[in-house]
Amino acid sequence: MARFVRKQKNEIGLSPEALLFRGVKRTDKTLLRIINFDAENLQEKEIKTVKEAIEFQNSDSVTWFNIDGVDNPEIMKEIASGFGFEKIILSDVMDTLSRPKITEYSNCIFLSVKMLKEDEESDNVAIENLSLIITPSVLISFQEKKGDVFEPVRDRIRRQTKRIRNSGTDYLTYALLDVVIDNYIYIIGRLGEKIEELDNRIVQVSDKQMLDEINTYKRELNFLRKNIKPAKEVMLGLAKTESELIQDSTEVFLKELVDNITQANESSDSYREILSDQLTIYHTNISSKLNDIMKFLTIFSVIFIPLTFIAGVYGTNFEYIPELHYKYSYFIMLAAMLIIAIVMLLYFKRKKWF
Amino acid sequence: MARFVRKQKNEIGLSPEALLFRGVKRTDKTLLRIINFDAENLQEKEIKTVKEAIEFQNSDSVTWFNIDGVDNPEIMKEIASGFGFEKIILSDVMDTLSRPKITEYSNCIFLSVKMLKEDEESDNVAIENLSLIITPSVLISFQEKKGDVFEPVRDRIRRQTKRIRNSGTDYLTYALLDVVIDNYIYIIGRLGEKIEELDNRIVQVSDKQMLDEINTYKRELNFLRKNIKPAKEVMLGLAKTESELIQDSTEVFLKELVDNITQANESSDSYREILSDQLTIYHTNISSKLNDIMKFLTIFSVIFIPLTFIAGVYGTNFEYIPELHYKYSYFIMLAAMLIIAIVMLLYFKRKKWF
Amino acid sequence: MARFVRKQKNEIGLSPEALLFRGVKRTDKTLLRIINFDAENLQEKEIKTVKEAIEFQNSDSVTWFNIDGVDNPEIMKEIASGFGFEKIILSDVMDTLSRPKITEYSNCIFLSVKMLKEDEESDNVAIENLSLIITPSVLISFQEKKGDVFEPVRDRIRRQTKRIRNSGTDYLTYALLDVVIDNYIYIIGRLGEKIEELDNRIVQVSDKQMLDEINTYKRELNFLRKNIKPAKEVMLGLAKTESELIQDSTEVFLKELVDNITQANESSDSYREILSDQLTIYHTNISSKLNDIMKFLTIFSVIFIPLTFIAGVYGTNFEYIPELHYKYSYFIMLAAMLIIAIVMLLYFKRKKWF
Amino acid sequence: MARFVRKQKNEIGLSPEALLFRGVKRTDKTLLRIINFDAENLQEKEIKTVKEAIEFQNSDSVTWFNIDGVDNPEIMKEIASGFGFEKIILSDVMDTLSRPKITEYSNCIFLSVKMLKEDEESDNVAIENLSLIITPSVLISFQEKKGDVFEPVRDRIRRQTKRIRNSGTDYLTYALLDVVIDNYIYIIGRLGEKIEELDNRIVQVSDKQMLDEINTYKRELNFLRKNIKPAKEVMLGLAKTESELIQDSTEVFLKELVDNITQANESSDSYREILSDQLTIYHTNISSKLNDIMKFLTIFSVIFIPLTFIAGVYGTNFEYIPELHYKYSYFIMLAAMLIIAIVMLLYFKRKKWF
Amino acid sequence: MARFVRKQKNEIGLSPEALLFRGVKRTDKTLLRIINFDAENLQEKEIKTVKEAIEFQNSDSVTWFNIDGVDNPEIMKEIASGFGFEKIILSDVMDTLSRPKITEYSNCIFLSVKMLKEDEESDNVAIENLSLIITPSVLISFQEKKGDVFEPVRDRIRRQTKRIRNSGTDYLTYALLDVVIDNYIYIIGRLGEKIEELDNRIVQVSDKQMLDEINTYKRELNFLRKNIKPAKEVMLGLAKTESELIQDSTEVFLKELVDNITQANESSDSYREILSDQLTIYHTNISSKLNDIMKFLTIFSVIFIPLTFIAGVYGTNFEYIPELHYKYSYFIMLAAMLIIAIVMLLYFKRKKWF
Repeated sequence: MARFVRKQKNEIGLSPEALLFRGVKRTDKTLLRIINFDAENLQEKEIKTVKEAIEFQNSDSVTWFNIDGVDNPEIMKEIASGFGFEKIILSDVMDTLSRPKITEYSNCIFLSVKMLKEDEESDNVAIENLSLIITPSVLISFQEKKGDVFEPVRDRIRRQTKRIRNSGTDYLTYALLDVVIDNYIYIIGRLGEKIEELDNRIVQVSDKQMLDEINTYKRELNFLRKNIKPAKEVMLGLAKTESELIQDSTEVFLKELVDNITQANESSDSYREILSDQLTIYHTNISSKLNDIMKFLTIFSVIFIPLTFIAGVYGTNFEYIPELHYKYSYFIMLAAMLIIAIVMLLYFKRKKWF
Repeated sequence: MARFVRKQKNEIGLSPEALLFRGVKRTDKTLLRIINFDAENLQEKEIKTVKEAIEFQNSDSVTWFNIDGVDNPEIMKEIASGFGFEKIILSDVMDTLSRPKITEYSNCIFLSVKMLKEDEESDNVAIENLSLIITPSVLISFQEKKGDVFEPVRDRIRRQTKRIRNSGTDYLTYALLDVVIDNYIYIIGRLGEKIEELDNRIVQVSDKQMLDEINTYKRELNFLRKNIKPAKEVMLGLAKTESELIQDSTEVFLKELVDNITQANESSDSYREILSDQLTIYHTNISSKLNDIMKFLTIFSVIFIPLTFIAGVYGTNFEYIPELHYKYSYFIMLAAMLIIAIVMLLYFKRKKWF
Repeated sequence: MARFVRKQKNEIGLSPEALLFRGVKRTDKTLLRIINFDAENLQEKEIKTVKEAIEFQNSDSVTWFNIDGVDNPEIMKEIASGFGFEKIILSDVMDTLSRPKITEYSNCIFLSVKMLKEDEESDNVAIENLSLIITPSVLISFQEKKGDVFEPVRDRIRRQTKRIRNSGTDYLTYALLDVVIDNYIYIIGRLGEKIEELDNRIVQVSDKQMLDEINTYKRELNFLRKNIKPAKEVMLGLAKTESELIQDSTEVFLKELVDNITQANESSDSYREILSDQLTIYHTNISSKLNDIMKFLTIFSVIFIPLTFIAGVYGTNFEYIPELHYKYSYFIMLAAMLIIAIVMLLYFKRKKWF
Repeated sequence: MARFVRKQKNEIGLSPEALLFRGVKRTDKTLLRIINFDAENLQEKEIKTVKEAIEFQNSDSVTWFNIDGVDNPEIMKEIASGFGFEKIILSDVMDTLSRPKITEYSNCIFLSVKMLKEDEESDNVAIENLSLIITPSVLISFQEKKGDVFEPVRDRIRRQTKRIRNSGTDYLTYALLDVVIDNYIYIIGRLGEKIEELDNRIVQVSDKQMLDEINTYKRELNFLRKNIKPAKEVMLGLAKTESELIQDSTEVFLKELVDNITQANESSDSYREILSDQLTIYHTNISSKLNDIMKFLTIFSVIFIPLTFIAGVYGTNFEYIPELHYKYSYFIMLAAMLIIAIVMLLYFKRKKWF
Repeated sequence: MARFVRKQKNEIGLSPEALLFRGVKRTDKTLLRIINFDAENLQEKEIKTVKEAIEFQNSDSVTWFNIDGVDNPEIMKEIASGFGFEKIILSDVMDTLSRPKITEYSNCIFLSVKMLKEDEESDNVAIENLSLIITPSVLISFQEKKGDVFEPVRDRIRRQTKRIRNSGTDYLTYALLDVVIDNYIYIIGRLGEKIEELDNRIVQVSDKQMLDEINTYKRELNFLRKNIKPAKEVMLGLAKTESELIQDSTEVFLKELVDNITQANESSDSYREILSDQLTIYHTNISSKLNDIMKFLTIFSVIFIPLTFIAGVYGTNFEYIPELHYKYSYFIMLAAMLIIAIVMLLYFKRKKWF
């Protein structure tokens, strides 16, 4: 699950501009979609060739050019030459295993983050690399496969919400990243609910299966953290950029992004602490239960030890053991044993040993 | 209790300016109150409409406009348009689960912190989000419900304390935040008293219930820390701001706020260390007690083992065991056993095993 | 002992300039003393009213105005108005529980640190809040009670040591703070001696009382650290200040202060590590001793188990047990038992089990 | 393996410019190779004397001068004087045990990093010191022995890849360092595969050999980390340099290097955490298995203790024990023993003790 | 050994310029030596009075004035007045227990570091305080006693090594500090060898004596670290100074110093980690060995428990025990016991309990 960056031997020494797809192929066909809008007009369509998108480059309206599937070097090449991007940008887009980052170029800002999405059926979290290229009039977004979390943003554009239809690509970028971070918070919250639910159960009783649960949650949380943590650097980079692509009016929203990602990180930190506390409680419970058992068993044994010894003494075959011949000796012995046992029990009780 | 930030699925992708209340609804009706004062005059009243408050906007006197209840989007909208605020500010006000923050806008400073208040009846700590909007002549404060901790400030205004009646909204802001931080210190102190009281008890005797106490205090302290820690950033932000809304003469008081919140944080750090030490002492005590019991029981058993063995030997049915036929054999055996037991005890004693 | 900052409920919301004494009242009467000197002249006297001190304000000579006892609001008020200080300074002076700090005002520098002093009789460490107000010609020092650690400085002034008699209030400040820090180092050193002495004892033998010693030293060290740590910020603040009240020639001495307080902090860090190592050694010793005992006892028991079993076998009442009837059976059994025991002992020995 | 820096007694106090080889001699003969190229031409040859390389110094084309073997002071001297380098640079080149570093000189940039290379036969990682001297037209690289990881770069130069043939020594430097870092990632990834494979095994069963595996991986990872960590400083230094030797167009690639090395460091951090978790799981498993055994054995013993006691009672030789004479006593005793054993088992079962 | 800074009660409050020797007196007579040189000439002699050294102050040649023994206030006074130094410098020189530091004065740079030197006979590390005062033409070095580590530098001067004879006091300072740091690395390396040698032994067998070794090395390493760590600040301060006393050409060598001290610190960090790992391995080994013993003993006991029980049953004195009268009962019992023991052993074996 962890998706660490790895290199294949044959990837070493490639040109940084080589358009090589790295990752798991997730789609058969690259899907190109366009949403072009300004305050009055809205045009939404699927396009066949990159060329159709390039035409929007110099219009006054805002265009959101979304590409699903990043494994086709041909399309990447067309985008690079059509929009005049450095080739290294597209190489970064195709490296879906790379670390979230933000880089400013002379004619655009490139940024990539991990997109987390809950798969409602399997209760799993799907991870995808999202790359954005911000240009003055076109925002290009690259996703690894069809189906995304941006439907609410499309709805806002369609419903002609004033702000988004009157702003540029920078505000659109904010809107997309806001959804990404909201999903982070949502997914951490879902995991958090399970963790807090365990919190109530663990104080009552501890069994081995809880340990497995804790370890599972710990791994899931680590997985989330690894993907969310570096996104903060990207948000900070975006909020602090002095690029002309970001208008002053958008800055307050970018600060909002930083606040949100900080909040996501802090609550993941909190859950980590809770998990660590749960682990301690689990181990304390287990060891305290074991101690109780061993103590009980030991006390139980100890009580019988002098009694068995006494029986042993009267089991000896000496010729002259006076006690053996008194009529009530046997019953006296039994009574003595009972008294010894009771006295020991009382002594242990008073010492609060059980 | 922890009130972590969570997102509902349907909140994802909302416009940042959507006036959506997030949190637990705590009041039925929004309550608007006005205190308007300058060095000579004082006017205090409950108002029905936001419009009445807006009128004070351009007066030379200072107005404290307090709103109890932040779940009414209509009122928020009126405030935004009446005072000319960015809508995102009011959206932040309504998000009572958000992280404490401070943001400067062109015509105001917005800040929010968590307000802790001891519920004297239930001995619980109630938490509320406090938002402040500082403008040149009006300070707007938003609380989640009626009833607050600011009565001493109102008294100071009424009693015509020179400084507060002659200063602007910046000093009033200081006065409110000072009360908030004083409450932090007070509440940490209350918890601290319990922790220190436990400190005396735990060295004497350790039982399971103390572990529960420690864990309870730890959770409470973590809860307090999570809410207090980020407030320091807000205080620092306020002390360092170069906004014209903050007069030079107020700066020394804002530094005082930073000192106080630092002190609150440090004493919460101290209590955390004490709790962690207590946990160690508890575990040391428990394990040392268990070790003592096991050692005692083992030594007890060990003393009987050779004795039982001797009895066993004379319980064998061999035909020729010379000792069996001497008259005093039985008593000699008992004496030997006694001597063996005493020698062993002395040996263990000399070795300081018990 | 820990003296954490606490708030009383009724202190919340007070004006920051309210002259309220916080702390433990330690003196009955406020004592005012004046030392006025320049290169040639020296005047030392006890004064009755603040007014007498104020007269020195504009002289060319240097005046050290020392106040023992900070619980009298009247005197504070006179000082504030007489010297033209902000009232908040005096409010800070009276809050003896506050955190060490340094604040620059337009006409003075205010700083406060904790003063540690060994009570030679009781071997305890007394803590006191020391506040200094540095003005061009008068240095005002506030102590909580009579009797202080500054006698050596007074002696240096009286003995007409060139440097101190020719310098201003800044050098005098340095001299006082130097004594304060020297006392920190001295007191840490005293505690350190005890810790190092324990270091030698603990490797030989560990008993419960040593654990108590370690815990006591740990608490004492934490107490010292909590009071000394924040003083470093004050020294750094003083060394870095660009106030005109500090002459260039004094700066090198202020850097010396920073060096000294750093040294104090580092040696307290070292002792903390030593204590932590001692704790580990203690626990290792205790658990290793317990293990040795349990191992011994277990081995002892195990050797008797097969022997007792053999005796048991020959204690059965079967009619046909051939061995029972041979004449030397009993002695052969005893010999066999001895051999078994020796073989087991040798086996355990070879395995290095004891 | 660790190759810590050590000093021989006789090395102390040597002039910093003394050309003394430090490290393990790895080659018999120093090998000098030249690749000289521009957009159109390419010349690749082995040379005999340093002089031949120096001639390229003032040409417009780019020359990569590679030296295999750094233990020959004569050659170092010739390079220093031929290219006009400070002698300390060559002294650093010959100190193969030194820490990665970057230093700017007036006429060149010197940098050194550790080069990791997988030895495919032995599955070991070979480490070598790589030094680079960047001058306007010649890039000089020093390796400890023949055979390197740079073949892909040579291929790119030969295949006339546009970018590399049209750029200067700065881009060539990037290309070499990129290969070095790719090898870091590859080697960490190889180790990571083993660690993750262990991750699956360890949850099922824990044996001593796994502990050895974990410790081995931990050491290998520490070895890698120690060599990779300081390389980040070098990459940052290169990315931030304002030297004219680095063209603006190359900067984006240098930032790429920083991203890659960061990624390498982060994944090594992740593996470290995984190893630490595995250690915890291992110890939990071992101790939980031991506890289960001890619990089983104790319960087993405890059940027999009262039974043996009963047998002991009826083994006593009292004259009057009524039970001994009833016909079915023996069988009743056996039945009672069975019942006692079953009751105890059920009790322990219900208490969930096994 | 640790040489923590301590204050005597009577040292508190002394003037910072008081020339009081602090430390252990290590020499009877102060020894003054002069080496005066320029590119052509070299003069080396022992002098009687400070005055002779002062004469070199204004010459163009470089003079290294070395003083062995810092406990003579008279000589210090003469140096201060002769060279025109602030008295506080000499006070620092005499305080041999103080922390390494660097301070710039108007006419000189003062720095002090700890000098470590291996005593080859006793295998101990001797520590000495080294103070340097850098002036334009004279470098003054203060050592605590005769005999030092600088002989290689003197040799370099005598052998007319070009660089050192043509440079100023700044390069000479570098040369001395380089020797000091080389000794740090050498001494850490010596300790490191022992630690690595232990590393090989500890995986095979763990005994108590190894624990002592680990603890000894840990203390020695801590001692080294405490003395070496602060030297880095001094080197950084020297490398970053903008004083005119340091020529541009020397700066690259000072950076070298920073690199070297960083390397020393890093390798001491590495050894610390190794020691900490060794401690963990030791404890794991010890506890695993104990567990094996206890497991063996417990299993051994458990096997005999049912056998002894059976013997007990046939030792009862019931009148009617049918088995007692069959001829082969005894042998059947023995056989049954053997089978039970074997079955139990197999069961435990299959469960992998031993």
